[in-house]
Amino acid sequence: MKREIRILGIDDMPFSFKDGNVDVVGVVMRGGTYLEGVLKTTIEVDGTDATSKIVEMIERTRHRGQIKVVMIDGVALGGFNVVDGREIYDSTGIPVITITRNRPHMEKIKQALKKHFDDWEKRWKIISRDKTSEIVMDYTVYVKNYGMELEEVKEIIKLSTIRGAIPEPIRVAHLIATGIKTGESHGRC
Amino acid sequence: MKREIRILGIDDMPFSFKDGNVDVVGVVMRGGTYLEGVLKTTIEVDGTDATSKIVEMIERTRHRGQIKVVMIDGVALGGFNVVDGREIYDSTGIPVITITRNRPHMEKIKQALKKHFDDWEKRWKIISRDKTSEIVMDYTVYVKNYGMELEEVKEIIKLSTIRGAIPEPIRVAHLIATGIKTGESHGRC
Repeated sequence: MKREIRILGIDDMPFSFKDGNVDVVGVVMRGGTYLEGVLKTTIEVDGTDATSKIVEMIERTRHRGQIKVVMIDGVALGGFNVVDGREIYDSTGIPVITITRNRPHMEKIKQALKKHFDDWEKRWKIISRDKTSEIVMDYTVYVKNYGMELEEVKEIIKLSTIRGAIPEPIRVAHLIATGIKTGESHGRC
Repeated sequence: MKREIRILGIDDMPFSFKDGNVDVVGVVMRGGTYLEGVLKTTIEVDGTDATSKIVEMIERTRHRGQIKVVMIDGVALGGFNVVDGREIYDSTGIPVITITRNRPHMEKIKQALKKHFDDWEKRWKIISRDKTSEIVMDYTVYVKNYGMELEEVKEIIKLSTIRGAIPEPIRVAHLIATGIKTGESHGRC
């Protein structure tokens, strides 16, 4: 694993459920620490276009040829606009890692989907299809990985994390997403 | 000069002169390399509120107490919305550096102001009042400095520049400003 590897980190802006759309921020970082590019796309709140919009964003960027892995904050963006990591990997050939700090409560997710969506089974199928792995390092994180072995995922998370639990590409995408939307970035990451 | 010094870098988003307003991005970086926060404010294109909006942005942020210097991309934002570095320094007590890669053409600026603004003398007074210094390092940059000696300005630019001529806080603010506005960041910096 080269330390200079380019990682695309993705997070969504804050939104309210009255909003129709929500912007999604992508950051291209070299070695997980040097910012090389900032991307933006727009998806529907609770829609079904997150996967295709992310694929589009990857395909159109000038950084396309450099990006070696995509890291996404969680398994859905803009509410329950589910991100299909496998489809992103199949479409682009770039490995995908979804990552969260909290253990996903699968039963809660299922109930929420059932309650809110007629097409809940389709969304649930994507979310529940692939294994979530626990990675214990200084902190514990939960990942789904596509096109990349778990050992390599660990290595990538390690080299791209400066402090705390969250790799720089996702931490920086989160700071930008919250700062631009609200005027001042905030924490969680 | 501590390497861990917090710098606020400021740049504006791209805009067209049909736009009434333009967003301005601020980034707080530690040691000029580790992103700690992202701020946003909005100013009028060709207006006169850049100085007061930047002062406000500084006063309201949670990073207020940490910021040791403000770096601004040029002497005006959003067209000819002139930034008064002296007033920012006087109001906040934080030293200010305006920085450009190209030598400012003072006579051209004066003519443009005369042509477009009834209040051109007021704007010109701020722009022309303080000395522009040439700093020659690996690259040459042009700065105005407020509340900080030129030797210290050089030191700050040196410690916050990773590659090329532009210190990280301004380079990163520029990448965010262009990426969020257009979908993909671009270069100049």
